[in-house]
Amino acid sequence: MDKVKVAILGGSGYTAVELIKILLRHPGAEIVAITSRQDEHIADLHPSLFGRLDLRCELFDPDKLQAMGARVAFGCLPHGTSMESIPLLLDRGIRVIDLSADYRLRDSRVYQEWYKESHHDAANLAHAVYGLPEIYGDRIDSAKLVANPGCYPQTAILGLAPLVANELIELTGIVVDSKSGVSGAGRTPKLTYHYPECNENFAAYAVGTHRHTPEIEQALSDVAGKPVSVVFTPHLVPMDRGIFSTIYATPTQPVTEAGLTDLYRSYYAGKPFVRVRTGFPATKDTTGTNFLDLAVKVVRGGKVVVLAAEDNLIRGASGVAVQNFNRMFGFDERTGLL
Amino acid sequence: MDKVKVAILGGSGYTAVELIKILLRHPGAEIVAITSRQDEHIADLHPSLFGRLDLRCELFDPDKLQAMGARVAFGCLPHGTSMESIPLLLDRGIRVIDLSADYRLRDSRVYQEWYKESHHDAANLAHAVYGLPEIYGDRIDSAKLVANPGCYPQTAILGLAPLVANELIELTGIVVDSKSGVSGAGRTPKLTYHYPECNENFAAYAVGTHRHTPEIEQALSDVAGKPVSVVFTPHLVPMDRGIFSTIYATPTQPVTEAGLTDLYRSYYAGKPFVRVRTGFPATKDTTGTNFLDLAVKVVRGGKVVVLAAEDNLIRGASGVAVQNFNRMFGFDERTGLL
Amino acid sequence: MDKVKVAILGGSGYTAVELIKILLRHPGAEIVAITSRQDEHIADLHPSLFGRLDLRCELFDPDKLQAMGARVAFGCLPHGTSMESIPLLLDRGIRVIDLSADYRLRDSRVYQEWYKESHHDAANLAHAVYGLPEIYGDRIDSAKLVANPGCYPQTAILGLAPLVANELIELTGIVVDSKSGVSGAGRTPKLTYHYPECNENFAAYAVGTHRHTPEIEQALSDVAGKPVSVVFTPHLVPMDRGIFSTIYATPTQPVTEAGLTDLYRSYYAGKPFVRVRTGFPATKDTTGTNFLDLAVKVVRGGKVVVLAAEDNLIRGASGVAVQNFNRMFGFDERTGLL
Amino acid sequence: MDKVKVAILGGSGYTAVELIKILLRHPGAEIVAITSRQDEHIADLHPSLFGRLDLRCELFDPDKLQAMGARVAFGCLPHGTSMESIPLLLDRGIRVIDLSADYRLRDSRVYQEWYKESHHDAANLAHAVYGLPEIYGDRIDSAKLVANPGCYPQTAILGLAPLVANELIELTGIVVDSKSGVSGAGRTPKLTYHYPECNENFAAYAVGTHRHTPEIEQALSDVAGKPVSVVFTPHLVPMDRGIFSTIYATPTQPVTEAGLTDLYRSYYAGKPFVRVRTGFPATKDTTGTNFLDLAVKVVRGGKVVVLAAEDNLIRGASGVAVQNFNRMFGFDERTGLL
Repeated sequence: MDKVKVAILGGSGYTAVELIKILLRHPGAEIVAITSRQDEHIADLHPSLFGRLDLRCELFDPDKLQAMGARVAFGCLPHGTSMESIPLLLDRGIRVIDLSADYRLRDSRVYQEWYKESHHDAANLAHAVYGLPEIYGDRIDSAKLVANPGCYPQTAILGLAPLVANELIELTGIVVDSKSGVSGAGRTPKLTYHYPECNENFAAYAVGTHRHTPEIEQALSDVAGKPVSVVFTPHLVPMDRGIFSTIYATPTQPVTEAGLTDLYRSYYAGKPFVRVRTGFPATKDTTGTNFLDLAVKVVRGGKVVVLAAEDNLIRGASGVAVQNFNRMFGFDERTGLL
Repeated sequence: MDKVKVAILGGSGYTAVELIKILLRHPGAEIVAITSRQDEHIADLHPSLFGRLDLRCELFDPDKLQAMGARVAFGCLPHGTSMESIPLLLDRGIRVIDLSADYRLRDSRVYQEWYKESHHDAANLAHAVYGLPEIYGDRIDSAKLVANPGCYPQTAILGLAPLVANELIELTGIVVDSKSGVSGAGRTPKLTYHYPECNENFAAYAVGTHRHTPEIEQALSDVAGKPVSVVFTPHLVPMDRGIFSTIYATPTQPVTEAGLTDLYRSYYAGKPFVRVRTGFPATKDTTGTNFLDLAVKVVRGGKVVVLAAEDNLIRGASGVAVQNFNRMFGFDERTGLL
Repeated sequence: MDKVKVAILGGSGYTAVELIKILLRHPGAEIVAITSRQDEHIADLHPSLFGRLDLRCELFDPDKLQAMGARVAFGCLPHGTSMESIPLLLDRGIRVIDLSADYRLRDSRVYQEWYKESHHDAANLAHAVYGLPEIYGDRIDSAKLVANPGCYPQTAILGLAPLVANELIELTGIVVDSKSGVSGAGRTPKLTYHYPECNENFAAYAVGTHRHTPEIEQALSDVAGKPVSVVFTPHLVPMDRGIFSTIYATPTQPVTEAGLTDLYRSYYAGKPFVRVRTGFPATKDTTGTNFLDLAVKVVRGGKVVVLAAEDNLIRGASGVAVQNFNRMFGFDERTGLL
Repeated sequence: MDKVKVAILGGSGYTAVELIKILLRHPGAEIVAITSRQDEHIADLHPSLFGRLDLRCELFDPDKLQAMGARVAFGCLPHGTSMESIPLLLDRGIRVIDLSADYRLRDSRVYQEWYKESHHDAANLAHAVYGLPEIYGDRIDSAKLVANPGCYPQTAILGLAPLVANELIELTGIVVDSKSGVSGAGRTPKLTYHYPECNENFAAYAVGTHRHTPEIEQALSDVAGKPVSVVFTPHLVPMDRGIFSTIYATPTQPVTEAGLTDLYRSYYAGKPFVRVRTGFPATKDTTGTNFLDLAVKVVRGGKVVVLAAEDNLIRGASGVAVQNFNRMFGFDERTGLL
């Protein structure tokens, strides 16, 4: 079988380099182009690729990508920029997996409220599919445009889905306390991410205002069939990778830990990348993989506590993007990922 | 003025070495003895003390400590062991600041429930004072036995005290999501704290079962004048030091962020080690100091979120112990600490 | 083609878990048994393997391994223990790739001098092949027993081979200053590797006495055809993985940086895992890979400085073991590794 | 006694904040002004100072500093900028301790060669004293301008001084292999120091070209009374603080480890901040202190290996600056530092 020709938009960041490494191992994908405003060899942008991929970055040119036979593009551009480029590819019949936030929120007013800029691609927003395979699986297979999910939201959505699907918890006031490694902040140097500032440090940020909040609520409301709201607090952990979310919910009926664990196991049966763990999850168990690990506890006082861990760059971004790619192009969901 | 002669019980751990470093800078304290089962020079146990303190550890001998003129002993022993040694010192008129958990819980049944062993020093438990100066200040001054507070509890108690004192929040279902550097686990090597296991890793532990829970509830119930209960989840952060707690509470009446911040400022007026911060606290701002930094936020949906940060070894243990020492021996509370 | 049935001896450590992860991706290998004194499921020893390999560790039983059809065993046992088990496998026709030090030093007196115990398998020592494919390639293909090379030695040997092969440097007094991540010390908890001890710390150890010294000298003497001696100093770096060696040599004739770089490029032409880098190597560029990155510099005063970087667990142990496996069983050298 | 009024030039970086913290504990110093191009409260630049120092940064105005009664200024400006400001202070009778490199190299041609810009304050360069108290002690006491030594050079100079003073080693070809925590690179964000780039990474930089090379050679040549040359290689360690240097020298006569250790002990007798260690130094033993720890080894093959460790921000910059201040203003050398 011919390999699927793939383009990557925006090659300079962490999600791009992770994506490249996964695709280099993927038997059914061939990277034909990487775009960047930086006119450099990809191995000069990412020295770890030295000797592994001989490709020079090029400026974004949708006609050229079409001429090259690219059938799909992975968008690793910042939000706002994404929705400038992506329509040009869709118009040319190139399917898109967009790792930015531009097509995640179905309601463009919500986008404007949280991202502080107006959405100007309503046409494609209307048919974009939220790329969380465990929830929206079948719709992804035939999608032209997949909005790859945010790193934090996946832990919250998959951590809570079995509970909200069965209305076992109150749907408002859910607390999602999340902790992320620093790579989640991207590759642009800033004082906050300067090594001596964030090493040996732990802090919260964007308390009550983080843009992943409406994304979490939209997906959980889909699962519940009614509105769900969360209090979401992200924190920065002095480590490269990993997201851990500790989720607090109030049950609406008597529950047991064993019962809920069984529920999670059956809810995620057949989903190869969700592991309902015995013991406690830990980010390190998921590092470098596309696994999302879960455990559910019932604690003194009756609260349900869900623990969720993932690698923010793989499961949280580039890995789930390839999982979506696999579904879209008829590969086994695990190809290149296990 | 003569210096106060001080003994340290259990010199091999992290709280001991921090205490020694603070006391070496303290103009009114003189370390006359350090006990340990390890018959070694203190600088062999703690190489950072090389050339700074010429003292050999000795076996615990209460008569000898009395003969040396020790007026106070800092207990850096494990819980369980502490209550074996401390009565022998109190009997000899030596005041004690105990950094273990043995005298923190007033009700010995609660101790037994959480620590899984019976308490066998009811006599001294009856008069021990919980050594959190901002709450129990005056009682500490004249105490014979001070139960130095736990590291996590200080963030939760001081983080919530202004709210529960004024009954501004519901007193049950409060969520305390805490994160600690690895030194909080002590100095005994175990796989969990082996560098390649906990570095680049983030995980929860003791979910719903951590022994600091009843300590938090006891102090907050004192402040509130009625029972307070919390859901407490500790996590391990890959860094040496620092505790950060993110606390979620439900207000019982309309509140504003500005109003609550003012309340915190006035509640802690005159308390030199509690800083009600502008902006967000971060553990690194407190590293090596006795400060406990706080901020209070009101988020979308109405929840109150309190952020608290401290150095777990200084404010969380040895620093607050010296703060207690200062009160007990008539020094300015800040001596040796600022 | 049938997969090659593989056994792993000693499944509890870091080299074992890395080996398992590589072999799970290898299309031509099947893990049929993992031995350990710990009678546990492999995923309980290594939670990252949860759901990925359903195998319980078993006690070492050479007859059983033979009955299972194991054609090769990877030895992840400590030195000393290795030479107890390995002869029993060789006797049964099972080839062995030994990751311990037991068969690396050809002269058993040298072994005794550095490892402080006598060698008692002279018979197999006589035919063991040192498993550094770039130097001993052909001999590995048909070897019954491969002594997988040490982590530090690979950086020194491959870093210096082009120079000593061409007698461009003085063969005594070479300085090898090496720095290793903490996983190189293994998985057994000790105070030195307790997180709060080695985090935020940098120190030398085993100055002038490290056991990898004779291994470096033996291989370089093979390459030179005459005795080579080095001063080797290892250091511990607060990171999980990676070895970086800075090597100082005195040229015996005028050399230029460009000329030496060309020499290195041609010396390693066709060796897929040695990358002669432009710019400076860095351990992070090799993390998770089997690459060994090199650069050669000529500095003020005329000294040659060689920089070498690798992942100590992959290239330094389990990756090169699979590279050896590939050679021994007729696979492309890169299989499972790129 | 009146406190000495002190100004700090350039308040935004790491050396400034460390200096402020030391001076806040110093009984004989009072910070009257901090200059910066950033018109901000010092606690907004350095949140750890919140509540500890109520001072707003101001633009550099030498007349104003004179009018305030500043008797000394600590220069925390970048090199190049320093020599613009400092003459204006010296003209007004304000003594200066300059933490930049501008007055360290006595020969302005050497400055130009290594710093790639011409020196334009020959007048003050002529009388500047290199501020390494253990070597240039008496000259510092009366100096108007002290050139505070570089972080790396102190480890090399103090590590080698006893050997070169007694001509026990060859004076050329000495290898200084140094490793530094990331704070040594300053506080300006750059990709190299972006957390996910330098965390879990180890690499060399500026091989053979680092600007501290001539500074090391100048001081060691002073000690030897004849030219000394070194090969100096700096490396970046993923930790906040600490420098460790491993130094390789060739003895000119038979030496023993015990003999050399005695020599070091007597050479540094009476120097409170140089600790000739038993065992191996480690950076962590010096963190937060002004100590420089040394050990000397004689290894197989006869080479002398010196190990040196310090805190790069304290001993390597702000601590030794206060040590110089103490000498200049008649305080005990240890004041504020122990």
